[in-house]
Amino acid sequence: MRKFCVITLFPEMFDKVLDSSMLWKAQKDGVVEFELLDLRDFGLGPRRQVDDTPYGGGDGMLLMIEPLKKALDKAKLNLPNAKVLLMSPSETVWSQSLAQKYADSSDDYIIICGRYEGVDARIEQFIDAKISVGEFVLTGGELPAMMIIDSIVRLLPGVLGGEHSAEIESYSDGGNLEFPQYTRPEEFEGMRVPDVLLSGHHGEIAKWRKENSKNADS
Amino acid sequence: MRKFCVITLFPEMFDKVLDSSMLWKAQKDGVVEFELLDLRDFGLGPRRQVDDTPYGGGDGMLLMIEPLKKALDKAKLNLPNAKVLLMSPSETVWSQSLAQKYADSSDDYIIICGRYEGVDARIEQFIDAKISVGEFVLTGGELPAMMIIDSIVRLLPGVLGGEHSAEIESYSDGGNLEFPQYTRPEEFEGMRVPDVLLSGHHGEIAKWRKENSKNADS
Repeated sequence: MRKFCVITLFPEMFDKVLDSSMLWKAQKDGVVEFELLDLRDFGLGPRRQVDDTPYGGGDGMLLMIEPLKKALDKAKLNLPNAKVLLMSPSETVWSQSLAQKYADSSDDYIIICGRYEGVDARIEQFIDAKISVGEFVLTGGELPAMMIIDSIVRLLPGVLGGEHSAEIESYSDGGNLEFPQYTRPEEFEGMRVPDVLLSGHHGEIAKWRKENSKNADS
Repeated sequence: MRKFCVITLFPEMFDKVLDSSMLWKAQKDGVVEFELLDLRDFGLGPRRQVDDTPYGGGDGMLLMIEPLKKALDKAKLNLPNAKVLLMSPSETVWSQSLAQKYADSSDDYIIICGRYEGVDARIEQFIDAKISVGEFVLTGGELPAMMIIDSIVRLLPGVLGGEHSAEIESYSDGGNLEFPQYTRPEEFEGMRVPDVLLSGHHGEIAKWRKENSKNADS
């Protein structure tokens, strides 16, 4: 059983995502378990403050270190050995090879969703990795957190089972995208499925697919 | 008013995300409008079939072209001039410069969420761009769709308003990450905010921040 604990100001964003499709099935099958911690519950004072203005000036509000550390301490009660990830702009950009590495490990994960206006830099002392999903700015780390969860969980043993072969998947062998695929009907608005795919000649089909694969770096 | 119409098998995944935070405010302020179309509503036959096995063999189910085209036709009734995007593994990887380009245009967008097992390749005839968010495999295009929506909408005029300056943001000038930021308290578990940030010397603060910025390609 692999466990993920997510620390976020918006736990409700995760509800329907974690209960949909593959992630729901992985939970039902006992492969994975999720816990959501609402950072607001660890806020300071009667207003449960979680952010404040930056020292030295600047726009935007930063997540304060104290509520984050309190939430992290709580998360570690259940998952003392979990790796702690901060979703944040960083040099480490998520990739299929990282997803595979995380899936192959036996680690549990505590994922802190940064707000992209910023997080008090002292959080660095408490995390194992800062993870970005790409070179674009988002309002918060919630969507990236869901994305890395999805990409890891689908690789856990027993999750995709016999329904799916990872072998021909895009990116899984370092850059090959999928070949064009077709399903019924044979003709749609004048566009026909390539004859070779209807031929039943497995060798010819494999050859056509290889010739028609696109490479991710082309 | 910019409009996004999303075609997906999992419209419920979008509810809480579109109603959270910045995206909720952008809707309330009349800057943006979202429509969700459930692909299942356009499925074939009494069981509303939306996928089928690939011609030529292979694992996984492909989204069929007919339900997709019917959903697209419906979306185009409201947004006849919208650009059509397919979230899918592709050569075009989302970036901050693309987000800016999409935000600066006056286009509305119809976003088709592929399931990553595949989509009938004839969809290519009906789309303007295939967009990937990175080199990793996900169960579906829903999270990537939410992500590009977030990254575009936050750049639309009036959305972030005075609360936020885009100028110092990570990636916005082509690779600079943010400098370390700190907020209260001055000391936490023995870790002090750098003295210069408490000094009030704006020149020194700017110099320190420049020296301590990290570059995305470092």
